[in-house]
Amino acid sequence: MEGGGGAPPRAHEVRLKIVCTSLCHTDITFWRMKQDFPAMYPCILGHEAVGVVESVGEHVEEVSVGDTVVPVFLPQCGGRADCLSARSNICSAVAHRHGFMPRDGTTRFSLASTGEPVHTFLSVSSFAEFTVVDVANVVSLAAAALPLPPEMACLLSCGVSTGVGAAWKVAAVEPGSTVAVFGLGTVGLAVAQGSKMRGAKRIIGVDLNPDKFEIGKRLGITDFVNPNDIGEKTVRQVIKEMTGGGADHCFECIGSTSVMAEAFESSRAGWGKTIILDTDAGLAPVSISSATIKWGRSVTGALLGGIKPKDDIPVLAQKYLDKELELDEFITHRMGFEEINSAFDLLDQGKCLRCIIWMDDGAKK
Amino acid sequence: MEGGGGAPPRAHEVRLKIVCTSLCHTDITFWRMKQDFPAMYPCILGHEAVGVVESVGEHVEEVSVGDTVVPVFLPQCGGRADCLSARSNICSAVAHRHGFMPRDGTTRFSLASTGEPVHTFLSVSSFAEFTVVDVANVVSLAAAALPLPPEMACLLSCGVSTGVGAAWKVAAVEPGSTVAVFGLGTVGLAVAQGSKMRGAKRIIGVDLNPDKFEIGKRLGITDFVNPNDIGEKTVRQVIKEMTGGGADHCFECIGSTSVMAEAFESSRAGWGKTIILDTDAGLAPVSISSATIKWGRSVTGALLGGIKPKDDIPVLAQKYLDKELELDEFITHRMGFEEINSAFDLLDQGKCLRCIIWMDDGAKK
Ligand SMILES: [Zn+2]
Ligand SMILES: [Zn+2]
Ligand SMILES: [Zn+2]
Ligand SMILES: [Zn+2]
Repeated sequence: MEGGGGAPPRAHEVRLKIVCTSLCHTDITFWRMKQDFPAMYPCILGHEAVGVVESVGEHVEEVSVGDTVVPVFLPQCGGRADCLSARSNICSAVAHRHGFMPRDGTTRFSLASTGEPVHTFLSVSSFAEFTVVDVANVVSLAAAALPLPPEMACLLSCGVSTGVGAAWKVAAVEPGSTVAVFGLGTVGLAVAQGSKMRGAKRIIGVDLNPDKFEIGKRLGITDFVNPNDIGEKTVRQVIKEMTGGGADHCFECIGSTSVMAEAFESSRAGWGKTIILDTDAGLAPVSISSATIKWGRSVTGALLGGIKPKDDIPVLAQKYLDKELELDEFITHRMGFEEINSAFDLLDQGKCLRCIIWMDDGAKK
Repeated sequence: MEGGGGAPPRAHEVRLKIVCTSLCHTDITFWRMKQDFPAMYPCILGHEAVGVVESVGEHVEEVSVGDTVVPVFLPQCGGRADCLSARSNICSAVAHRHGFMPRDGTTRFSLASTGEPVHTFLSVSSFAEFTVVDVANVVSLAAAALPLPPEMACLLSCGVSTGVGAAWKVAAVEPGSTVAVFGLGTVGLAVAQGSKMRGAKRIIGVDLNPDKFEIGKRLGITDFVNPNDIGEKTVRQVIKEMTGGGADHCFECIGSTSVMAEAFESSRAGWGKTIILDTDAGLAPVSISSATIKWGRSVTGALLGGIKPKDDIPVLAQKYLDKELELDEFITHRMGFEEINSAFDLLDQGKCLRCIIWMDDGAKK
């Protein structure tokens, strides 16, 4: 590819040398949905990473060459309506465009052989030695002066921030409250860890895979429900019995509309919240009973767990350094870039949380 | 019927002489759904009213004989978990029981001819000269020392409080925000009035009946959308154009799942809230796109607009007296008790907001 992986950055863009990257379920989802987004392919996947700024385009003042940064699929321009409001983490100025750079709708990659454009994935494309991202899509760790290990910074790029943020920013989990987490992948376990950080007294994990339970305990899960082990009962019945009427907060971390409905029905009357963190890949709608929601329940959705990347990722990094937030357990595998296909297999089979993929194999621990 | 309309009050109960009452859509809904709740019939309908305490049972200290009170379908015991929390208006101690008194599951009415029990409706049964209600289900206006006209107190018993409360307590409408109200009956127009009270800058009313638009203006509606008059466009498109991307708050006040879905799709990304105030009479679920909700949207339901009756109805009464809240416009008809069937016809045909039904015909203005 041109220029060793990416044309030079244009105005408001930076070129990054990727240090390490990891695989998130969304990469697999889009890879599977290839036929639904034909204009996005060919593309370079990957959006969870940490990199060093190699060069900057015009009007970039926020970061400098040599800075360590975390690229994030969700932009934060910081200057317009939604970004200025504490109520939203959805930047309305720098829109996401499937397959293209957010500002000018072009790409920085092309096939060396034909010159055919190669598309950008989620504004990041981290499965490359070099990538170009908008400055609105990078969080500088240099500015925060944090001595954060690159692997931990990489985790905060997407999945872990999504889960911890959901407990912290969307649900605002209260001390002493009860939480039910549906799906114990990285996002679900990060919800558990975020809920623990916020002082939840009971954190119920729901998953069909009993292997998730041991690691779940280490990340904050206090009780397990395996839908295969509850006989004639439904998950909602079991959770209502365990919590005396339903959990205060129910998080759906799978992307299944039937699980979303079960999570909703497991929430308590009065103030029970259901938080939806993933999209059903088949784009089916979730069915909510209007008779049930009327009893003071709510359903909320969020991208990146409601966190504003530039404001909140440095806070999470500090919480890790202060030992208020556990991150190490999320790294179950480490490998070199040439082994990336096995990372796809491991994640797809539910056999890993995060595989850290080091671009320079010598740096792999 | 026994005792001139109701047996004496038992412990924690009061017997009320109804001064005036009004008809709410929920009375019609339950009357129509008779076959779905056979154990509730025969019953005495009516739940929006004002009355004077005629006698009290044991352990009633909160009100005295002669006090003017507003009966409310939603109890507030004041003393247990949910009632002590600011997050909920659902009392978990005094449960609602369809057709019966909340504490002991019996009724205070019977047929004089056979002794067969006649059921209580929504814990109130106000279409009677005398009724018995739990003390958790009455709001004393004597305690608040408010010289509120009985008709205005009657309005605050259900429908108007539901709409104003939804804007005030559930949505917490912000000054300068945009609101869309689906369905301009009493609840919808009370949402408009509540949103105006909270300082909303634009309040869009959606209704098929153009007759609602004149009175809507007087109660706070700034813009009208009649789905029959927008050609090929959808309501969500029109509202997104009017508001630059969607309303901050969308209220569903009809009880139609298709309208609930349209309200949801009319809410803005980032923080758009949809508030569901009525139940689909057919009990169909509402379909929510998980792809749409993820962009920071939420859906919330509430009973009685999220207000705690004993705490908040006196506040609304004071706002009326301070001329911050308009109530007079909601009264479109007045009649004597013997004309109640015409009140059903008027409401069913969308020809009235509230008909005040005076038990003592001489008191009717
Ligand atoms: Zn922005
Ligand atoms: Zn991701
Ligand atoms: Zn209570
Ligand atoms: Zn009502």
